[in-house]
Amino acid sequence: MEIFLDCLPCMLRQVIDASRMATESTKLHEKIVEEAINLLGNYKKYRNSPEVGREMHWLVKNFTGVMDPYKETKKKDIQTALKLYPYLKQFVNEKNDRIYWALKTAAVGNVIDTAINAGLDIEGCVKAELDKRFAVCDLVRFKHRLEKAKSLLVIGDNAGETVFDRVFLEELQNIDITYAVRSAPIINDAVVEDAYASGLDRCARVVSAGCDVPGVVLDRCSQAFMDVFHTADIVVSKGQGNYETLSDCGRDVYFLLKAKCTVLSGVLDVGLNEYVFKYKGKMQ
Amino acid sequence: MEIFLDCLPCMLRQVIDASRMATESTKLHEKIVEEAINLLGNYKKYRNSPEVGREMHWLVKNFTGVMDPYKETKKKDIQTALKLYPYLKQFVNEKNDRIYWALKTAAVGNVIDTAINAGLDIEGCVKAELDKRFAVCDLVRFKHRLEKAKSLLVIGDNAGETVFDRVFLEELQNIDITYAVRSAPIINDAVVEDAYASGLDRCARVVSAGCDVPGVVLDRCSQAFMDVFHTADIVVSKGQGNYETLSDCGRDVYFLLKAKCTVLSGVLDVGLNEYVFKYKGKMQ
Repeated sequence: MEIFLDCLPCMLRQVIDASRMATESTKLHEKIVEEAINLLGNYKKYRNSPEVGREMHWLVKNFTGVMDPYKETKKKDIQTALKLYPYLKQFVNEKNDRIYWALKTAAVGNVIDTAINAGLDIEGCVKAELDKRFAVCDLVRFKHRLEKAKSLLVIGDNAGETVFDRVFLEELQNIDITYAVRSAPIINDAVVEDAYASGLDRCARVVSAGCDVPGVVLDRCSQAFMDVFHTADIVVSKGQGNYETLSDCGRDVYFLLKAKCTVLSGVLDVGLNEYVFKYKGKMQ
Repeated sequence: MEIFLDCLPCMLRQVIDASRMATESTKLHEKIVEEAINLLGNYKKYRNSPEVGREMHWLVKNFTGVMDPYKETKKKDIQTALKLYPYLKQFVNEKNDRIYWALKTAAVGNVIDTAINAGLDIEGCVKAELDKRFAVCDLVRFKHRLEKAKSLLVIGDNAGETVFDRVFLEELQNIDITYAVRSAPIINDAVVEDAYASGLDRCARVVSAGCDVPGVVLDRCSQAFMDVFHTADIVVSKGQGNYETLSDCGRDVYFLLKAKCTVLSGVLDVGLNEYVFKYKGKMQ
């Protein structure tokens, strides 16, 4: 997906937040912002916003030496999500159409996005969000495909959201599941350690995509991941960053996300904050 | 007031909005944003955010030839506020402490800030906002001063808010009132034409401050305005932009505003979206 102008101030705001999480030095905050503005000026050199975001957050790492400014936030989000896990299981258990609501649960996990909703009352909003229906839901096609599929690749997004994804994956049977995460900390995105802390290793093979962008840029990914990506019968991509980097990729993908900003809601033609489970074929 | 890092992405977002209001050409949007980013990189050359904002919005004017992108918005906001005028008068009439609630009415006018709340349901929120009390209110001092004062200068902020200010000014008696506005269109700030359209000429002498910044930068103001500024017994400054440019000025000022962003609420030590009527003396 192309870079929208609206993404530029949003990324700048996010890097200010990240720099404050990494250090209390206002001189370093200013230095990082100065460099981030320089980088914004060259945004046309990049193919998508997550690639710009990766460079901007690298500035924070480079100037502060803090490789994972969101470490504590991610830990806290996973703990909160694990406390919600029994509630989420019960929520799905009580439904007739378990796959629909398990997908919906995984989509709701996408609200644990500290990058956007700093200070969010996760527990409070999850219960209200679960009941909302998808605005777009390509469920019939997905279920049909699932009947014959032997392998599924899920591309994860944020830490904490990982626990919600686990609830979804535990509904699936007789299918080989791979769960891919970032290769290194970037914003609050999940890495291998976060996936394990969320218990995803109990229902999936956890792998790194080999890419440290807050999305999946295929030519930066490992060959091992690319093999899984191209051979999996089904690919489910979680969240906005993965959509931004995979929406025009060379294979069919199911995109599962909440449209948390006007850019994504515009591109997906849904209202702001609506939920989407959208199939995009190879040719689209 | 110094420039906070948080103001930079906010100004960039605002200039994107303004460029879209001025033209449909995406090429021009991109050009404006490119230049705006260059300008942000030099933010340290400026004394406060409104001065940066003035330069950024000048880019929109320069590249599009549209000198007043918010013209229709301002007209609509004034019309909406004029429709509310009888309701606002009745609201103050029913109160015992009329000055407190008239000041409060003027402060609520500050929500008509299209720059921040694009698409806001003005009528809906005004009724709820009016009943909220000030978080900070230097009313005793103000009333005491008002008893002996012969002249009052009000420095206006947005178009539409002007009608709310009129309700406040109509409560005052036996005092010479000057109402100052921007010298040229900048964002949705009121100019002389807007003050007249709001009926402010019926209760005050409407003047231009001689300055086209979304705030009042004294060394850019006209001598005529400076004479009023320095000799008025009381100065009331409306809104955030005027606070940012006048908070360290050479005279005592009453600042009347809603803290609409975390930067201002932090500086004023109040909660986000709280109302403030704060006295700042010459020496503070």
